[in-house]
Amino acid sequence: MTGRLIGVGLGPGDPDLMTLKAARAIAAAPVVAYPALPGTDSFARRIAADLIAPSAHEIVIEVPMTKAREPAQTAYDLGADRIASALEAGQDVAVLCEGDPFFYGSFMYLHARLAGRFETIVIPGITSVSAASAALGQPLVARNDTLAVLAGPMASADMAARIKAAEAVAILKVGRHVGRIRDVLSSLGLLEKARYIERATLEEERILPLSKAPDPAPYFSMILVAKGSDPWL
Amino acid sequence: MTGRLIGVGLGPGDPDLMTLKAARAIAAAPVVAYPALPGTDSFARRIAADLIAPSAHEIVIEVPMTKAREPAQTAYDLGADRIASALEAGQDVAVLCEGDPFFYGSFMYLHARLAGRFETIVIPGITSVSAASAALGQPLVARNDTLAVLAGPMASADMAARIKAAEAVAILKVGRHVGRIRDVLSSLGLLEKARYIERATLEEERILPLSKAPDPAPYFSMILVAKGSDPWL
Repeated sequence: MTGRLIGVGLGPGDPDLMTLKAARAIAAAPVVAYPALPGTDSFARRIAADLIAPSAHEIVIEVPMTKAREPAQTAYDLGADRIASALEAGQDVAVLCEGDPFFYGSFMYLHARLAGRFETIVIPGITSVSAASAALGQPLVARNDTLAVLAGPMASADMAARIKAAEAVAILKVGRHVGRIRDVLSSLGLLEKARYIERATLEEERILPLSKAPDPAPYFSMILVAKGSDPWL
Repeated sequence: MTGRLIGVGLGPGDPDLMTLKAARAIAAAPVVAYPALPGTDSFARRIAADLIAPSAHEIVIEVPMTKAREPAQTAYDLGADRIASALEAGQDVAVLCEGDPFFYGSFMYLHARLAGRFETIVIPGITSVSAASAALGQPLVARNDTLAVLAGPMASADMAARIKAAEAVAILKVGRHVGRIRDVLSSLGLLEKARYIERATLEEERILPLSKAPDPAPYFSMILVAKGSDPWL
């Protein structure tokens, strides 16, 4: 009997925003795996720290942040091999994943390598988009509104067209694109409706007008645009 | 001292997919409020049932499902008044909300009426989109993919354009539009990549090829389209 691969969504960072199912899966896991930047503590492990059994075996997948994809892919190859060994030995492996595993989650790289060979369970997590709108106290979508989730590197003209078409917009992976995104929103007359938030639900959470956002923005930051004006009243 | 209005996201239906924070907020609340269709059990209450304190006062907001908006709005007016009385008496009120409060959540109708007058906390929940992709075992977005969340009633040409532009698409509020949506996806050559799911995470969960989906589809159903082909490998 092989073990089960369990992709555990941890939510945005506040450990209390883990689901009951995620908390139980972590506590029960004989093996826990998670990514970490080389030489640093794993953010995923930090979220789950209080739940990991003292006897659990931990597999750290050191994933370098490089522009080229190969080093990261090699790291996931090696990590998948180590996880496969545990699964083949009959042990369940809980893979810790910030946010939601299938919403820009690192778990997908392991899922692609292992789900075909082992029983796989995915426990969804609170996305950064839900966390950010809750932290802002700003409703995102109601009734028949549409939502566009976009990535910062997207070309400006394409970004502008999609922002125009949707009632609500979440722009992730802002990084060094923050100034250009601000220009796009400004040209659409939407600067007032855009809000910048970084590290939602963590102690270091910051909410700023987009004009005051740092440039470059940190990795865990987002711009939310809500264009509807209380249409549900 | 007035009480706090707490919008509690319950997630998609499986009580284990509530967050630790949501579970604690419900258990601690002296007053619990939730919507219900007249004459039926409240789905939100059913999800949270095991957590509500026996001593809690319950405010049931009976919201009729009519085409005209006025009857529902009147119901929320009355519900907001009853919640306001409890808050003014210094009691915290936990408002139960399926899914995520700010993602098509019923809580927004109360938020619009009360958040300006009372301290308000929103606890995000697992969205039906995250729940559906986890249940399908189908990754949604990776890297710089974009996601479009659309509503079934949208016009076909507009829907087609947005489906074409995004790497992943979630279509909510499918209902009686299911046949037309199937035609749109078929004309785009995307029928094979579209999956139909209803009541994700509940015992009654069903996953079907879109060609086999019931017409009309039930309220708690969704179509997911993932167009990327494992770009993260």
